[in-house]
Formats: sequence, C-alpha cells, structure tokens
Amino acid sequence: MDALPTEATARPAFAGWLGTTNDVTRTFLAAGRIPGLINMAGGLPAPETYPAEAVADIARRAVEEHPGDTLGYGPIEGLPELRDALARRFSRNDLRLARDNVLVTTSGMQGLDLIGKVLLEEGSVIAGQFPTYLGALDAWRPRLPQFRNLVLDAPGLDPVAVFAGAQFAYTVPNFSNPTGKLVDLAMRERLVAAAHRTGTWLVEDDPYGGLHYDAAPLPRLIELSARRHPASPYDGPVLYTGTLSKEIAPGLRIGWVIAAPAMIAALVLAKQGSDMCTSGITQRIALGALEAGLIEEIQPAIVDLYRRRRDALCAAMTEHLSESFQWEIPSGGMFVWAVARDPKLDTDLLLKRAMEAGVCVTPSSVFDATGENRHAIRINFTRNEPEKLHDGVKRLAAAVQAMQTSRN
Amino acid sequence: MDALPTEATARPAFAGWLGTTNDVTRTFLAAGRIPGLINMAGGLPAPETYPAEAVADIARRAVEEHPGDTLGYGPIEGLPELRDALARRFSRNDLRLARDNVLVTTSGMQGLDLIGKVLLEEGSVIAGQFPTYLGALDAWRPRLPQFRNLVLDAPGLDPVAVFAGAQFAYTVPNFSNPTGKLVDLAMRERLVAAAHRTGTWLVEDDPYGGLHYDAAPLPRLIELSARRHPASPYDGPVLYTGTLSKEIAPGLRIGWVIAAPAMIAALVLAKQGSDMCTSGITQRIALGALEAGLIEEIQPAIVDLYRRRRDALCAAMTEHLSESFQWEIPSGGMFVWAVARDPKLDTDLLLKRAMEAGVCVTPSSVFDATGENRHAIRINFTRNEPEKLHDGVKRLAAAVQAMQTSRN
Repeated sequence: MDALPTEATARPAFAGWLGTTNDVTRTFLAAGRIPGLINMAGGLPAPETYPAEAVADIARRAVEEHPGDTLGYGPIEGLPELRDALARRFSRNDLRLARDNVLVTTSGMQGLDLIGKVLLEEGSVIAGQFPTYLGALDAWRPRLPQFRNLVLDAPGLDPVAVFAGAQFAYTVPNFSNPTGKLVDLAMRERLVAAAHRTGTWLVEDDPYGGLHYDAAPLPRLIELSARRHPASPYDGPVLYTGTLSKEIAPGLRIGWVIAAPAMIAALVLAKQGSDMCTSGITQRIALGALEAGLIEEIQPAIVDLYRRRRDALCAAMTEHLSESFQWEIPSGGMFVWAVARDPKLDTDLLLKRAMEAGVCVTPSSVFDATGENRHAIRINFTRNEPEKLHDGVKRLAAAVQAMQTSRN
Repeated sequence: MDALPTEATARPAFAGWLGTTNDVTRTFLAAGRIPGLINMAGGLPAPETYPAEAVADIARRAVEEHPGDTLGYGPIEGLPELRDALARRFSRNDLRLARDNVLVTTSGMQGLDLIGKVLLEEGSVIAGQFPTYLGALDAWRPRLPQFRNLVLDAPGLDPVAVFAGAQFAYTVPNFSNPTGKLVDLAMRERLVAAAHRTGTWLVEDDPYGGLHYDAAPLPRLIELSARRHPASPYDGPVLYTGTLSKEIAPGLRIGWVIAAPAMIAALVLAKQGSDMCTSGITQRIALGALEAGLIEEIQPAIVDLYRRRRDALCAAMTEHLSESFQWEIPSGGMFVWAVARDPKLDTDLLLKRAMEAGVCVTPSSVFDATGENRHAIRINFTRNEPEKLHDGVKRLAAAVQAMQTSRN
C-alpha cells in the first residue's frame, strides 16, 4: 500500500448509459433564460394559465387543515383520499377503478421511471410508438433496454408482431409528443387487442388528454381494455399514466399510474427506493384543486388560448415554411411536427442555425433512440403569443434559407 | 397467428431485483394506521414538532409572490436561489461551495437513487457502512450491485482495502441508521484519507446532523476532504447528502447532494429522467424557511424533546430489557440499536411476537443486504411520548419472554 500516492488521480467511471444520453432537455430548460430567444422547443404550458391565486389559497389551507398529511411521511402509494379522487375521475361505466388501481407519482416522468424499474432489465424490449417522447427515452436508458419502433402509420403494421416478446409497448394516443398525432379509434382497438392477445403491458401516456381543440376525446386505451376484461377493480394490461402539469401547473409535480393492482404493488416497491413518498403538500394541493373543480374551471380558457396559438403558428408556417416543410394541423396537444421536404436537410444542423437566428425548436434526432432520424422538427405553440410565434417562424425560415444558401 | 388465443394468460415478468427486495418499510408505514400498536419501528419525526402555521404562511406567500418559480418547470438542478442558500449554509472556511456544487433533490432518498443511477452497473461494488440504512439498500437494489461491508468497529479495519475497487463508499457518520453511532474524528479522518488515496467516491449521508443531544457536531467528512483538496468550488471525492425531513418536515420531500461539479452534472442527467425537476412549490417553501431561520428557531425545542425521549427509552430498556439485550446510549439521532445477548434469539421471529404484543420495532435483517443479520433490533424514540415508550418496551420484554418460554 505504501506505493499508493495519497491522492488518486482518477475516480471510478460513471455508468455506461450516461455516455449514451443527451442533454437536450437541459439545454432547452436553460434556453428559457437566454434573452431575446424565441423558444418553441420545450413542452411548456403558458405561464399565464397558472391559477396562482387559487393554488396559493389551497396551499395555505392544505397545510393549516391537514398538517399531518402535508408535513409527515405519507403512504408510498399516495394519500388515500387523492387515490380515491383519481379513481373516481377516471372511472367509466366499463372501467371500474378502485384505490388499489392508483399510484400517485412525483410527476408523470416518475411514472415512466418506475415502470422502467419494475419491467426492464438489460436487453429488455420496449415497443415504443415512433418517434418517441424524449423523456421516456431518458427515463428508460439507465435500464439498458432495446427499443423496437412501433410506427403506427407504417403500411401493413401488425401490432401483435411488434408487441410479441416486448416487456411493454409505449404509446401517447392523444397528440403524441413529438408528432401531435391523434391515434384513431380503429388503431386504439388494434393496440388494445394486441396487448390482450400477447399479454404485453401497454403504457398509455396521456399528458395532453385535456387539450382537445377540434373534437371530443376518443375512448382511452384503458377503457377499451376494460371492455374486454371487465374485472372490478380493473386488472388488464394497460398502464394509464397522467399528470396535472398541463391541466393545472407543472410545479405541482403530481402524476399518477392507473393499472392492475399487482402492477401498482410492484411500482410501490420501486417508488419506495426512489423518493419514499410524494410530498404531502403537493398531494393535498392537487386534491384540493380536484375537489374545487379547478381543472374544469380553467380548462376552457386554456383550450381557447392554445387553439388560437396553434392556428397562429400554422398560419405563419403556411406563409413562411411551406416550401421547405410539410405538416398536419394537430387537433390538440402542444406541438406541430414538420417534416423537411428536402431529404438532405439535417435538422440537427438546422437547430444550430436557428439558435443563431434567435429561435429554438426541437430536432427529430432526440425522439429516436438511435439518434438517426434527422429530417423533422417539433415546434411548440403553447408557450408564446401569436406575434412571437410568427416572428419565430420567420427566423426559422431565415435559418433554413441560410443553410440552403451556404450549401449551394 | 390464428392459433394465439385472444387473451394471453400471462404477462411479462417483473425485473429480477423485485424478488430480492423486502416490503418492511411499507409494512411499517402501514403499521402507523393499526390502532393501539405502539410503533417504535419507523424513523419518523414527532409530528408535534412540525411548524405547520409557519409553513402554511410561507407556502401561500411562495405561490403568490413567485408564481413562475413555484408553478412552472424549473431547472433540473434546482432553483438557483435555493442552490445558493444551501451552498452558503454548508460552506466553511476550508470548504468553499458554489451553486455548481449543489443539486436539489426530491427527498434525501432521491439523492441516493440518483447516485446509484450514475455510478452503478450490474456487479458494481458498494463499500457500505454495516449494518446499512435500509433505504439505501432499497435505492440501490434495482442497479444489481454487490455490497461489501464496511464494519467501522472491526478490529484491524483497513479502509483503503475496503474502498479499493468500489464505485463508492457509503457512510452515515452522524448517528448512523440503524446503530445510532457517531463516527469519531479519527475514523472520519481515516475514511476521508482512504477516499482520497483510492479515488473512490465517498457518500456522507447526513439526515441526523441536526440532532445532537450531548455534544457539539464533529467536522463533516466533506469538510475534512476540503482541507486535503482546497479547490474552490469543492472538487473532492465526498458526496454530502441531506434532507429537511428531520429539521423541518418530511412532507417537503426536499433534499440535496453537495459534491464536485462533474458529479453534480452527471446526477442532473439522471434526475432529468427521474422527475425532470423538483416541485417549485416545495423548493420555494424550503427557501422561505431557510431565509426565515425556521430551522434555527425550532431546533432547540426538537433537540430537547428528543433528548428527553431518548432518556425515557433508555431508562425503560434498563428496567425491562437488560437481561436480554445490550446497547449503547446514542448521543444523537433517532434510534437505539440493541443486540441480543442470546445469540440464538432471532429478531425476525421476535418482530412477529412483538406485533402480537402490540409493539413494532425493526429487526436487524433489513439492514443487511444478505438478510442474515438477525440478532439485533432498532428502536426509534422520537415518535412516541415517554409513557408510550415505556409501555412499548414492556410489551417488547413480554414478547421476548414469550419467545423464550415457548422455546423451553
């Protein structure tokens, strides 16, 4: 031992997955602080929709009236009253939910993290709707899974073949992040049938379910599943994950997983080692907000605001980006997905040009576990006012122009 | 495909680590709801110490005055003002901390979880102070590590040999959970020297650092490390983890990791996929509480209360348990660790008898990754009033008696 120096020059290596991750989310959160930049990259709600006064009042009363619940350790599963309220909120005639179907999570992201913890080992297969929500890739990378792409608009898609042998399938049926697409009823039925047939768990991630701009919501996958498997409480293969981030405010960090009781029990063991329990303060605020009907109160104004912004973005895109990109107008959610007409246009490079031009969007590579998909961009329309969206699109068009000029 | 039934009879298996975990923590949290049971098992603060009125007021003002910080997404690292406040709080002459040294975590438990995510792969070695905090075992099991026992009172202990090749060492220098032991200054110096010599990361988990009953605190490991490695900001091998759970209230779920900036940057990538960011509401409450001096205001009363309860527990144990157990009086923290005099006494079995007798303590098996250590119990003294502690010890003594009678 005497040969050892008193100060080692190296420390143990970080786990291998850290070398495969990207820090785009972090870059984007930080971009929010660069002055003058028009940020259309994140998935951020409009802060003017946050019901600050109502939450401030609910928060004070929550702590005053429920000091034990708010300030102590609570059950890992979540406060019983909040679990019951969520069970009631998502129950339907066909879908009978009990407290044991509900886990309260510290954000929707934590739900995805916990699902990975209980279902993934190195090499496990995830059949993920492609392109795939960046945060889901982030949540699952540390478990070293394999991603198998579930491309819902692929000709001849056979969901049974894609699900077979996967630990779980992952979908965002309502206004998928990043594509903004709504999965239609026929495809919902096929996905649920494939889950029942193969036994594979089916994650239905639904952060945007409250943001429909043009039509009424379609039945959830978990409702379609319950019709095939009418147990009470629900005992089928769908894990329904959600959050209050888009319907009240992200700062609550309150989400949930609704699933078969055996799955909830496994997730509870994982949550025990993740954060022991979710804050009683934020849980009681969430419960107070649900009981006061706060979502129903503020949702019409949010939907109106976001619909106007979607329309403004799409109008500006038609004016300035039609020659270089094509897109569909999303009927809900927070994003427009624009695919480059020129297959040689690299949107990772475009992002750099765009940042120089004072605008930020999200390149498609981050929604692909391999990073290879570089021909599209995701544009957020909820965070900025119409004039800003218009300016942002103009800056983006200038960046595209500059790229093409420099290439010629 | 036609041969497949429309309803699979099995679902994919859970990850293997779930079969190796235990649900003791959950049992104990649930035990809090069994009427009449005297629960001396958990690590729960006394709820009468929670400053509910102050927190209610701080919570209301936090949301009213900082709607953006509290209700929006924040930086993954934590709110800059809270990181700065924590850097100032733990800085010393020798230990110069900057914002980049600080990660805000959603509970102390999340700090441990994130450390596991960035440092552990299957088979990685943890040199863990033995017996080991149950929650740390829970946090790291999903990463499939190997535990190497660091037994601080073992004759001839060579920390350099125990640390060599480990990804990190794990210690609770102030009133270790479960043993309640204070690591003395000489051993602190040896641990820090071993970390510097081997390069191994050294986790200093300090949830009980504010609960000294008999003497002033000793220097933290991170302070001793900084003396050997006087970089500014701190860049040495110690990761100092803490929480507001014992000094204000667990319901905040606010903790921190203080470490070298490169380690903080890696932990941030892990946190991104765990919960994206900690609630701005609870972070702003924590900041408000720190700025108002709330810890300093309430700590003397908490320390007095817990000291009286420790004395009451130890007096009752001397009266009723001296023949069957031996223990040292802890000079801080929340626990007495009692070792059975009879090496054949199995404390897992004792727990069952004790629950029947109406009292709950924690068996030593849960603080051993192998589950083999079955000769001791951990008794909490912070949660119950002196009379309850006395009754609990009498019930426990009756359970020991019943076990011995049934064996003869």
